[in-house]
Amino acid sequence: MTIESVIPALRDRFGARVTDAAAVLAAHGRSESYHLPHNPDLVIFPETTAEVVEIVKICAAARVPLTGYGAGTSLEGNATPLHGGVSVDFMRMKTVLAVNAEDMDCRVQPGVTRKQLNTELRHTGLFFPIDPGADASIGGMTSTRASGTMAVRYGTMRDNVLALEVVLADGRVIKTSRRARKSAAGYDLTRLFVGAEGTLGLITEITLKLHPIPDATAAAVCPFETFAGAVDTAIALIQAGIPVARLELLDEVMIRGVNAYAKLGAIERPTLFIEFHGTEAGVLEQAQTAQTIARDHGALAFQSTGNPEERTKLWSARDNTLYAGTGLRPGSKALITDVCVPISRLAECLLDTKQAIDDAGLIAPIVGHVGDGNFHTLILVDPDDAGEVARAHKLHERMVMRALALGGTCTGEHGIGSGKIDFLEQELGNAVDVMRSIKQALDPDHVMNPGKVFRASPRAGLKGDASDG
Amino acid sequence: MTIESVIPALRDRFGARVTDAAAVLAAHGRSESYHLPHNPDLVIFPETTAEVVEIVKICAAARVPLTGYGAGTSLEGNATPLHGGVSVDFMRMKTVLAVNAEDMDCRVQPGVTRKQLNTELRHTGLFFPIDPGADASIGGMTSTRASGTMAVRYGTMRDNVLALEVVLADGRVIKTSRRARKSAAGYDLTRLFVGAEGTLGLITEITLKLHPIPDATAAAVCPFETFAGAVDTAIALIQAGIPVARLELLDEVMIRGVNAYAKLGAIERPTLFIEFHGTEAGVLEQAQTAQTIARDHGALAFQSTGNPEERTKLWSARDNTLYAGTGLRPGSKALITDVCVPISRLAECLLDTKQAIDDAGLIAPIVGHVGDGNFHTLILVDPDDAGEVARAHKLHERMVMRALALGGTCTGEHGIGSGKIDFLEQELGNAVDVMRSIKQALDPDHVMNPGKVFRASPRAGLKGDASDG
Repeated sequence: MTIESVIPALRDRFGARVTDAAAVLAAHGRSESYHLPHNPDLVIFPETTAEVVEIVKICAAARVPLTGYGAGTSLEGNATPLHGGVSVDFMRMKTVLAVNAEDMDCRVQPGVTRKQLNTELRHTGLFFPIDPGADASIGGMTSTRASGTMAVRYGTMRDNVLALEVVLADGRVIKTSRRARKSAAGYDLTRLFVGAEGTLGLITEITLKLHPIPDATAAAVCPFETFAGAVDTAIALIQAGIPVARLELLDEVMIRGVNAYAKLGAIERPTLFIEFHGTEAGVLEQAQTAQTIARDHGALAFQSTGNPEERTKLWSARDNTLYAGTGLRPGSKALITDVCVPISRLAECLLDTKQAIDDAGLIAPIVGHVGDGNFHTLILVDPDDAGEVARAHKLHERMVMRALALGGTCTGEHGIGSGKIDFLEQELGNAVDVMRSIKQALDPDHVMNPGKVFRASPRAGLKGDASDG
Repeated sequence: MTIESVIPALRDRFGARVTDAAAVLAAHGRSESYHLPHNPDLVIFPETTAEVVEIVKICAAARVPLTGYGAGTSLEGNATPLHGGVSVDFMRMKTVLAVNAEDMDCRVQPGVTRKQLNTELRHTGLFFPIDPGADASIGGMTSTRASGTMAVRYGTMRDNVLALEVVLADGRVIKTSRRARKSAAGYDLTRLFVGAEGTLGLITEITLKLHPIPDATAAAVCPFETFAGAVDTAIALIQAGIPVARLELLDEVMIRGVNAYAKLGAIERPTLFIEFHGTEAGVLEQAQTAQTIARDHGALAFQSTGNPEERTKLWSARDNTLYAGTGLRPGSKALITDVCVPISRLAECLLDTKQAIDDAGLIAPIVGHVGDGNFHTLILVDPDDAGEVARAHKLHERMVMRALALGGTCTGEHGIGSGKIDFLEQELGNAVDVMRSIKQALDPDHVMNPGKVFRASPRAGLKGDASDG
């Protein structure tokens, strides 16, 4: 670690766009996660791919770690520079470079946020559907393989990235694919970098699929007497092949949170929020089928509407669940986690998680993209109560291990970061060695976001300890 | 190359399931492609993953090349053992290991064919939609990232493989993912092996997504006065967001071929074959919208039906285009190729290809999965006429280079094999070096299907010449 050796060259080249101001370092050392902060030594704001190449070459020569930074909304410490070094902030690379409306694709810089992109698309009749809740950057969403509420219909970042431009650890710039909708040309490098959490290179351009804004959209809110009734309805909707655009479950604890946060007055019961996209007739047909299925599973109501304003009002309970959830216990911090299981095991996994929460004596609202078998738990803890923090971690472990036992994954959409390294080993065993081999091949000195996804190979000169979870 | 050194151990272990019978070697040395045959030295028929591990360990220790073999239907010499060695034929590993109807997934051995799988699924209400035409094996389809007629609606193998079991070059067995529908857990190893053409390992189990058989299916056949009218209709259908399940274009030359082959009596004009999947009402709505769009673009007719038998009859022209195409010129061989471009450039690419065919003075029917921007040309040549063969290769090159110039790829679904190595370099440049680095990391001795995707590193002892195109 010789950060001092690179400072003169970086300052000389980038002037005021390099900073070690304490407040900036602190902002880039933490995220919206429960993980301990680790500050970078420097933050730098490149404006072009060529500048990213210069930064990488200067830093890699001195083995100074490089960690990309987008909107800071990741939840597993993915963008936290565990070993210090340089945080490469893409906020000045936020141009939508091209929109090909006829091909339904676009090419953007990594700092473009998803809301910015949809604003810039508003006259095209197209939209970018991946919605992880926060106004994340496209670069960050690509790197963490983000998904969110509409993945059940439109897929995740894995499915919606067509091509990438990446700066590798040795400063080479590659383009992973052309713009054709499909290709059988060589290894799927695009998918290799999607979800690699910046450990294999820095993404400098992203080509994305776009989708036509549906002719009609309808929403429904549907509370159930029992948790099992809500989960079974979600499963039945998927198994019936209804192409729902969103299918979200909030448990009664989370509904209580959003009632308090948004003065909503919703029935405090497990509730499904459903959205339908299609033609006018298609949406009506989907909603009617869904209503029948929900009633068969004991729905207390099925409030649906195609009116945009009413739809926004119905969905308001689903929005901002992060803040609404933590609001259930003022002063608490949330250990936020997610798992994903085959949908036939979802009921079992959710019910066991609720039991585990009760056993731990903690408050932990649940919200899930249940159409994918994916759900989140916000475990609310007093950060100063070591015993409670330990109980929260134990609860987290029980939830993940149960998901793995049911054929699921330790994370559906947040990524491994530094928090789930041991769970990944549990999940995939020696396949993690293959990931390490790829890392070694492309970044032998471990300068790209070291300490994430798997433990860095032991190497002299790393600052601090790689574990914080 | 010391094939002799491994024969005793393999014979001792596998007995009659190892063979060097001339006819068997010849069958495994050729494929349904125009590439020159290259025979293996041995063919072996494993029955379990553990046996595959044994084979790999014995061969890798002696640096004997290993090439997987499924149904032999690949089109770029993908399964041809360029450097001899052992052809690992998966015909005895053709068990459907598990069907999870509730989760809409299944787990199969690599030798299962797609038709076999759909037969075994017939009581579940589910189906596996990837249809490359031939009754290919699932292992082969995974390795070449196959797609076919229904990719426009259901995606390609890239989108429909959930997880893989792979035997690596050093005999390690890994599982790339769990069965959850989505995951953000580490590098996407599943997608790395899908489309790697067996150069990184031998796939021994595949977990696949399945899809509900639609409530209703309708088909339409729609001839046009002009080629441009047909292409523009296809583009307009996609841009209108109609969720067509199939969208195939046959040019007038190909229609002439199928007329002759199947005594069909179809109008010998450029023709779209369209299929709609959905609810009864949804399918009707889609077909009506499609008809309007087709009429607006000068369709001569729009013959549609929901009746299964009539549907089969309408589609019969689309089936067996490979045989129907070559039948246009008895005694000819077909140089079969495919490219894929962004859909806005499809008309330009197709029209230039037709011009190039005329310029070359060759017969070359065109059939395309035009909803994806993907099309095939069957260039019919007299294999004994060197001048004509050279013209065919030149035409092929012009077609691919035009596709690349339009932002497309040199292959939408056939893969690189040995035939498109130079085109891949043209398409992705230094990204191919990254593929080589990954190959080097996982298979440093190049025992896994050497000479495919990119040129093997020069290495002593390789038999023959790696180029045949």
